[in-house]
Amino acid sequence: MKFTCQKTELVQAIQTVSKAVSSKPQMPVLSGIYLKAEDGILELQATDYEIGILCQIEAEVETPGNIVLSGRYLQEVTRRLPGETVEIDFDRQEQIAHIRSNTANFTLLSMSANDFPTIHSLEGNINFQIRDNILKDLISKTAFACSNDEARPVFTGCSMEVHDSTVTMAATNTHRLAVKTEVLDDFNGSIKIIIPAKILGELSRLMISEIPENVAVSCTYNQISFKFDHVYLTSRLIEGQFPDYRRVIPPEFKTRVTMETAGFSSAVDRVSLISRSGDYNVITLEFSNGQVRIFSNNPDIGNAEETMPAVIDGPDVTISFNAKYVTDVLKNITTDKFYFSLNETLSPAAIREPEDDTFTYVVTPVRTAAR
Amino acid sequence: MKFTCQKTELVQAIQTVSKAVSSKPQMPVLSGIYLKAEDGILELQATDYEIGILCQIEAEVETPGNIVLSGRYLQEVTRRLPGETVEIDFDRQEQIAHIRSNTANFTLLSMSANDFPTIHSLEGNINFQIRDNILKDLISKTAFACSNDEARPVFTGCSMEVHDSTVTMAATNTHRLAVKTEVLDDFNGSIKIIIPAKILGELSRLMISEIPENVAVSCTYNQISFKFDHVYLTSRLIEGQFPDYRRVIPPEFKTRVTMETAGFSSAVDRVSLISRSGDYNVITLEFSNGQVRIFSNNPDIGNAEETMPAVIDGPDVTISFNAKYVTDVLKNITTDKFYFSLNETLSPAAIREPEDDTFTYVVTPVRTAAR
Repeated sequence: MKFTCQKTELVQAIQTVSKAVSSKPQMPVLSGIYLKAEDGILELQATDYEIGILCQIEAEVETPGNIVLSGRYLQEVTRRLPGETVEIDFDRQEQIAHIRSNTANFTLLSMSANDFPTIHSLEGNINFQIRDNILKDLISKTAFACSNDEARPVFTGCSMEVHDSTVTMAATNTHRLAVKTEVLDDFNGSIKIIIPAKILGELSRLMISEIPENVAVSCTYNQISFKFDHVYLTSRLIEGQFPDYRRVIPPEFKTRVTMETAGFSSAVDRVSLISRSGDYNVITLEFSNGQVRIFSNNPDIGNAEETMPAVIDGPDVTISFNAKYVTDVLKNITTDKFYFSLNETLSPAAIREPEDDTFTYVVTPVRTAAR
Repeated sequence: MKFTCQKTELVQAIQTVSKAVSSKPQMPVLSGIYLKAEDGILELQATDYEIGILCQIEAEVETPGNIVLSGRYLQEVTRRLPGETVEIDFDRQEQIAHIRSNTANFTLLSMSANDFPTIHSLEGNINFQIRDNILKDLISKTAFACSNDEARPVFTGCSMEVHDSTVTMAATNTHRLAVKTEVLDDFNGSIKIIIPAKILGELSRLMISEIPENVAVSCTYNQISFKFDHVYLTSRLIEGQFPDYRRVIPPEFKTRVTMETAGFSSAVDRVSLISRSGDYNVITLEFSNGQVRIFSNNPDIGNAEETMPAVIDGPDVTISFNAKYVTDVLKNITTDKFYFSLNETLSPAAIREPEDDTFTYVVTPVRTAAR
């Protein structure tokens, strides 16, 4: 195998697939990146069996072939190469790859390409297209609400349901729930799957196109694939039953508060400085007389208080939350103002963007001893 | 105590002294920052007994007094305050401090100011002035060469000798040595002390004046202080005998190589990618025929090689080094070209800046098995 390609494109492609290189590989070859040069294309692949990423770039291929090189060293070496182009030349006899760029000349030991579990195109029974900006929005509005606790797998993923051309993504850690819906252009099937949140995170980071672009999604009962640009990503799905979250969303609220997103978010962030080192990071919100008083108390440190204007429609209410569950969602609210909808002190509350019923965040309050 | 000051000045002053706040305090009050407001001045102090830092800023003092507040929380809270000014009001009865800025209102528990070991001005028997840019240069050219091994304290500090108005700073970890000399304007005494390298590092970071400014240095047999701008820093000195490093510097060299600093430095950095994961990080330099060939080899990974032009005056030589000992010094060379002076394969080599005999770096080569 021998080819030449642009250094920046190669570095970018290696970075793309390296998210799937296993840090604790089940077998040595999974610590590597698979390279295949053929017909003017260099294809890179990496997989840890959970996730697989494939990426293609243009290359001047002199001799076609394939090879597996250490992911870590391939990444470190290429990133620092001094030239604009890179030549990779595999000496099959010695089983080493020569990497040349300008004055630099590296050789890396190779692993057998035959041992690498190459990624095959998934032929799912359900296939649809979705705009990358819509998919990114579905992910950013929900994935943050997942749990990290691997002991309960269904909560580490986002539920994705498609029904009558409406796609709904939802995530919960049982204390909070985020739900976002969008409409698909040309699909009318029905799906109900759970996608690992960390893979949705990688997917978001890889969708870097500046103009909206279609992503082709394909899925079977236990696998999903996404294809866009020159990238192909596959992932296993999480098995299990996602909880019936719709019944958690309160059908109505007695009080609706409208506040400035940025101002409220930074005030909560400041006030929670004091409670953050405690076990629960509890802040209390007191809505009355056209303002919200945000306060927290930690007997070992001191307390914090801040007051800001709020438009309150409905009865006054005082309610406590884990501050992180409030600030997390506000980071993903893109509107200047937001609605905080409340019932009683111990009833779940909701956060929404104004004039938009496609997104709902529900958060359970904290019971506090005294105030 | 009650005062008002500018938020940015307070944040900066807290950051300055916080380098001396102990992370593992010997007694609780050392986790705090001491504040004293008097005569239009707010003074901040922190110490861990090794190092003490004092900083003064202007303040509108309504009621003079002093207080100790948690260093960590004072820093986190003030950094995020929403207003341009900050009011701190100490309620002596309740032993709490109220911190107010715009809409934010924090209270922090206080510690007793009487328990705090306040910093007293050091009245040394030796006192001199040095320009901050000269002091910074002495530090940057030597401190990196120290050892981190606390078991041998003298190697964790920089030797500072003043003799006949010449100041010499030197540091070594026994495998390498850095020596830099400068001339003092108005001092003719004699000093021989060892200053902890990490304190010199802090000192460098605190000297941020854009125009050269005098630093007043005072020292006793076991303490040193530096005064500049609105900052006063004291440190213990390291006891012990610094090795007689002058006899380590070879009196002459057979070969002198002149090379481009940046080009050689990045080539060494690239080539050592391969050797870095090994125990010794060895690179070999082969000087001959008007060029240097830099190479490294790691049986588990592969090898790397790079060639660049070099002006070689004297016999050819092939020599191996710990790559880090070469790149560390090159980061602190400010000239475009540098001299690499060599004798035999196993003799110490020197790195210098051209036309400048005030700086010398000596590095011991590594004995390699075979090449």
